[in-house]
Amino acid sequence: MTLMIQPVILCGGAGTRLWPESRGDRAKQFLELAGDQSLFRQTVRRTPAGANFLPPIVVCGADHVAAVREQMDDAEAALLVEPMPRNTAAAIALAVAQADAGTLLLVMPSDHVIADVPAFHAAIAQGARLAGQDWLVTFGIAPDRPETGYGYIAGGAALGADGFAVDRFIEKPPLADAEAMLASGGYSWNAGIFLFRAARMRDAMLTHCRPIFEAADRAIAAGVRDGDALYADAAEFEKSPSDSIDYAVMEKDGRVAVVPVAMGWSDLGSWHTIHALAAKDDAGNAVTGDAFLYDTNGSLVRAGGKRVSLVGMQDVAVIVDGDDILVMRLDRSQDVRAAAKARE
Amino acid sequence: MTLMIQPVILCGGAGTRLWPESRGDRAKQFLELAGDQSLFRQTVRRTPAGANFLPPIVVCGADHVAAVREQMDDAEAALLVEPMPRNTAAAIALAVAQADAGTLLLVMPSDHVIADVPAFHAAIAQGARLAGQDWLVTFGIAPDRPETGYGYIAGGAALGADGFAVDRFIEKPPLADAEAMLASGGYSWNAGIFLFRAARMRDAMLTHCRPIFEAADRAIAAGVRDGDALYADAAEFEKSPSDSIDYAVMEKDGRVAVVPVAMGWSDLGSWHTIHALAAKDDAGNAVTGDAFLYDTNGSLVRAGGKRVSLVGMQDVAVIVDGDDILVMRLDRSQDVRAAAKARE
Repeated sequence: MTLMIQPVILCGGAGTRLWPESRGDRAKQFLELAGDQSLFRQTVRRTPAGANFLPPIVVCGADHVAAVREQMDDAEAALLVEPMPRNTAAAIALAVAQADAGTLLLVMPSDHVIADVPAFHAAIAQGARLAGQDWLVTFGIAPDRPETGYGYIAGGAALGADGFAVDRFIEKPPLADAEAMLASGGYSWNAGIFLFRAARMRDAMLTHCRPIFEAADRAIAAGVRDGDALYADAAEFEKSPSDSIDYAVMEKDGRVAVVPVAMGWSDLGSWHTIHALAAKDDAGNAVTGDAFLYDTNGSLVRAGGKRVSLVGMQDVAVIVDGDDILVMRLDRSQDVRAAAKARE
Repeated sequence: MTLMIQPVILCGGAGTRLWPESRGDRAKQFLELAGDQSLFRQTVRRTPAGANFLPPIVVCGADHVAAVREQMDDAEAALLVEPMPRNTAAAIALAVAQADAGTLLLVMPSDHVIADVPAFHAAIAQGARLAGQDWLVTFGIAPDRPETGYGYIAGGAALGADGFAVDRFIEKPPLADAEAMLASGGYSWNAGIFLFRAARMRDAMLTHCRPIFEAADRAIAAGVRDGDALYADAAEFEKSPSDSIDYAVMEKDGRVAVVPVAMGWSDLGSWHTIHALAAKDDAGNAVTGDAFLYDTNGSLVRAGGKRVSLVGMQDVAVIVDGDDILVMRLDRSQDVRAAAKARE
């Protein structure tokens, strides 16, 4: 890598699929869901300020400013504070609006895990070369299952050894389509990680979603600084339509590249996924905290400071957080939202 | 009924099969496990002092004196305090040792439910007639399933309309034997409720288990009174062998009668039984406290002041007590002891 990369960490999510641990001002990204560091801390440390990376820009809501500052652990960061959630296009527009034209912005969610950081860095180097040629770059994860919860990317013409032109984006597919894409190859999961020159994205936004960019640009101009944080102006920002960057820009632009990368990525999107990735005992149980398991297998227990005892259970999650106790079949993890909605 | 009956409530049990709610000084009999009164309160009110019953004698451990006094709700009772547990024969011997010879003693566990109290009273009247003829009387419950957790009683010759001479006692049987007894009829469950003249039981104990009676008798003589409570002497009482009244007396005596009674009896011996007897919603769920159930059926939730959410669960118990959370398949209720042992 020859250019310095500006990391932009998107920290606006709530993550109700991991209720009850994830909720309100204690969002998923701030929890220790894989390993002993929070997902946010892992994200920050994945692109350490120094030879290749600038200190990060963190885009977050006002509710999360305290958590972000605490979990930066005294490292330098610039916070861009969203007055209200307006989805990823507007969040990225805030970062673009206040960046120098030539800056390479690396946009990353704050709540994923990446096991192989060197592979990620190598992919960033490839992506940086493409971004220097005015490609909007996304990173593609090779599917290992017919997942219906992610968007897919169809690769097209090779761009040297660094990646491929994107042929098209496919929204979360039905199972049959997901199985067909897995079988045919040439498709990647869209992991929501992007790399581009600031001016290139600014132009793309002005072309494809001008109201979003203009709202963000004015919200930055009218924003209020408080130390390391710039609070975007609420009256301006709320005018922004709420769209994903995929829908607002990437799917519409004619010069989008995908850099395939195998890096042990997961979005930890459910308790089922947390269990799948966790270290497990011989019976397939993954335990955090004080749990007594009797004739129990394939289960996830996060005891949350309480004492959890399981007798004769299979393939369940027991998640304790404060006064909330969730007991759920792991294969019903998507339905946790019903409980979260009833409880919050 | 023409004679006054002296109720003797045995209150010494611990009830670890209902862990975590039942434990230590908060034993099963003091909990609200069926209805909104504790099992002890239900037992006391089942034989109300007045026309037919004297105020009860309560035999309990020192740990339980405070709970007994509280749950008597200012009604009169005489407490006999065991310095250490020595099983039911010694507990009953304490009551016998301090009773007048002609008194009819009605011995009852404190942790059962009886839905049909008039039927119980009618059976007591039958039993009192037999006890007046020097029978040791036990009450037999008609089996409705091949239960292997109870002892059985084989009835013999009819004793007028009041009951039957006991042919023999059968210890907790294997399943095949339980099924055969259920099919053949003539067998009852041994519910651990007894009725006899004090002098008759004294003589039987002196014949069949003299060391138990003598230890109890001396422990009463050397006991210390504190208001309504007589604390049996520890040095004497601990000399008593530890046997059940069934084994020590009833199985050995030649003049034992059984009064069959259908009275909606249950020993609430497990969370499975608690669920079976509880009021349930259309999905077969029985809930106490704050529970959110999503696509869940056949389950028992006792939320213990916490907020319990179940997603996609079938036939489980979730019991919360303080910092302890038990999650168990209901059909594995017997195995709760493994958790109780590990946790206590």
